[in-house]
Order: sequence, then structure tokens, then C-alpha cells
Amino acid sequence: MRKDLGAIPAVYPMPVLMIASYDENGTVDVMNAAWGTICGMDKIALCIGGHKTNANIEKTKAFTVALADAAHLKEADFFGIASAGKMADKFERTGMTATKSERVNAPIIEEFPVTMECELLEDVRTDSLHMVVGKIVNVTADEKVLDEKGNVDVEKLDAIIFDQFGRSYFTTGEKLAGAWNAGMELMK
Amino acid sequence: MRKDLGAIPAVYPMPVLMIASYDENGTVDVMNAAWGTICGMDKIALCIGGHKTNANIEKTKAFTVALADAAHLKEADFFGIASAGKMADKFERTGMTATKSERVNAPIIEEFPVTMECELLEDVRTDSLHMVVGKIVNVTADEKVLDEKGNVDVEKLDAIIFDQFGRSYFTTGEKLAGAWNAGMELMK
Repeated sequence: MRKDLGAIPAVYPMPVLMIASYDENGTVDVMNAAWGTICGMDKIALCIGGHKTNANIEKTKAFTVALADAAHLKEADFFGIASAGKMADKFERTGMTATKSERVNAPIIEEFPVTMECELLEDVRTDSLHMVVGKIVNVTADEKVLDEKGNVDVEKLDAIIFDQFGRSYFTTGEKLAGAWNAGMELMK
Repeated sequence: MRKDLGAIPAVYPMPVLMIASYDENGTVDVMNAAWGTICGMDKIALCIGGHKTNANIEKTKAFTVALADAAHLKEADFFGIASAGKMADKFERTGMTATKSERVNAPIIEEFPVTMECELLEDVRTDSLHMVVGKIVNVTADEKVLDEKGNVDVEKLDAIIFDQFGRSYFTTGEKLAGAWNAGMELMK
């Protein structure tokens, strides 16, 4: 038996993206965004309209996007609550460490294990959409989340999920053994 | 110590979205897409360029988006492997049940527990982006994934995650107790 829930945002899981940028004074800002997606093998699109981050990106033409992990849940949540427009020491309060990317004019937050370094490609504004599109020029990752081949092992990453139904955070789970290409059975 | 991984798509978790549409003959197609995001409280944006689904949506101006759950992993994976352009009985092979939405000109796959019914708002094509933007007119959910208040309980949903680093599927995890608003501590 199905029930109607009305017009609500019903994607799950949603990522917890940490978008970092510099303002005109070189001050670091980080915001928390769940509404973003990869949109090409080296592209990411973010719905972050109206935030200070958007103004920063317009000026610097760059940003980084990190994945929030369970170890930095408090900081990640705070980046979503606090407004850099109203709290000048927003980033400093977390005690986190920012290092300027060698590739783009944006900060890398060292404590987050996986970070995409992005150049602004386009600020897309249409009747239905406002999205910042970035070209991923590099991904930098803490070696502690890499496997022996140097790829990100998501079981080591411990990324968190945003649950927009219940407004809460969840852990990511376990690998489904034999799941990849399980559908090949139906190809016969 | 951080390592450079080059320009790779590094969002995690990614959803496993089941996009269903009718072709010009009323035949059901379902595709598997991880590159999509909510982009407004009643909007969803999908990067699905070049697929039959895209052609279908251009004609019908509608689609549905369901969340793949672990119980239908094989079917979800198959929808990502098989091409409706080359396999006329793609949907029939799964044995799943499609019912026409009462609100939009697109099918609801009954076995998937949560489904967004969407009208096409815009097919956005820019230099950097190709996205189909839909207006979510309703969400229909199986009552077995709802809590006592009638909201989706993601612990009952058992949605799966796509891991683009390792090309595999993962389960979604557990609620992080006390996580929501944990950042308030840093507001003081």
C-alpha cells in the first residue's frame, strides 16, 4: 500500500559536502551543502544560491569540495548552521587547518580526508535552476583513506549521509558483496 | 600525508536513482543514474545526457525517480547495464510492476519503496552542463518505509549507495545519535 507524501525532496542518500572558498580578504569560509552532484568525469554541480560562498566563488573563480566524515561531524554541522556573513571568526572557531591549494585559488581543509580542487566553469542561472559548475582539476586525499593501490577505500573514509526526510546524519554502510554486475544475470 | 589522485569524480555517498519514463509507444524504460541532486524543495536535477530516457522525457515531459533499495539490487544494477535501445524487453525481463502515475505521464515501479513523480521543467544545456530539471509534484512511498507520523524512515528504507571510486554498491548505515545540531556547541 502506497501513501502520498506531497512535493518533498526525496533523494537518499545525500552527501555532506564541505565547500571551501576565500573571500575578498583571503578569509576562509566553509559551508555545508547536500545539494550537489558529479555531472561529468571531471565536473561537479552545486546548488548553493544566495550564500557567501557564491559571492566568494564569483570573485576567486575557484573552490574546493570535501567530503564530511564522522570524525568531524560537529564541525561539518556547524558549517551548516553558522553564517560567515554574521560571524567573522566562523572558520577559526572550529580549530581546523586551511592550506591554500597549489592548483586553484581556494583553501584545502586538512582534516577532511578527500577534497576536490575546482575551478569555476560556469554560474548557470536559468528559469528553473541556479548551479555553480566546477571543473575538478585534482583530488587530494589523506593516505589513511586509500587502499594499497592508492584508490579511495570508502570503508576507511567513514563519510556521513544527510537525511533530509528526518533532518539527521547517518553513517555510510558496508559493501554489498557480489552486488556490482549482479544485474548481468538478467542480460542472458 | 595527502596524495594527489588526479581529476576524478569524488562525491560520496552517491544515490542510486531509478529514472522511469515511457517511450513513444508507451513502453516502460528505467535507467540507473547516480549523478542527480535535489536543487530546490520541489526540484530535482539529473545528468543523464544521451540516454533513451532523455529522448522519452523530451516527448512525454515527465518522469519518475525512485530510490533503489537493497532488496532490488539485481534489478537496479541491470537497469544500469542494459540499454533499452538494444533490448526491447528490458523492463519486462525484471518481472517488476509498472503503474501509470495519476499525476504525470510516467510509470511508477511499484517495487521501489520511494518515488518522486516529476514534470519536466527544463532541459538545461550550457557550455558546461546538460541537466534535466524536474518539478516534484508528489512523492509516493510504500507504507512499510514510513514511521508512525507518516514520514520516510530511512532505516526502514534500506537504500543503497553507489561507490564511484571502487565501482560497487554499499548499504546506507545507522543514525548518528545526537549528530543533528551538534555544531551548536561552536555557536556559543
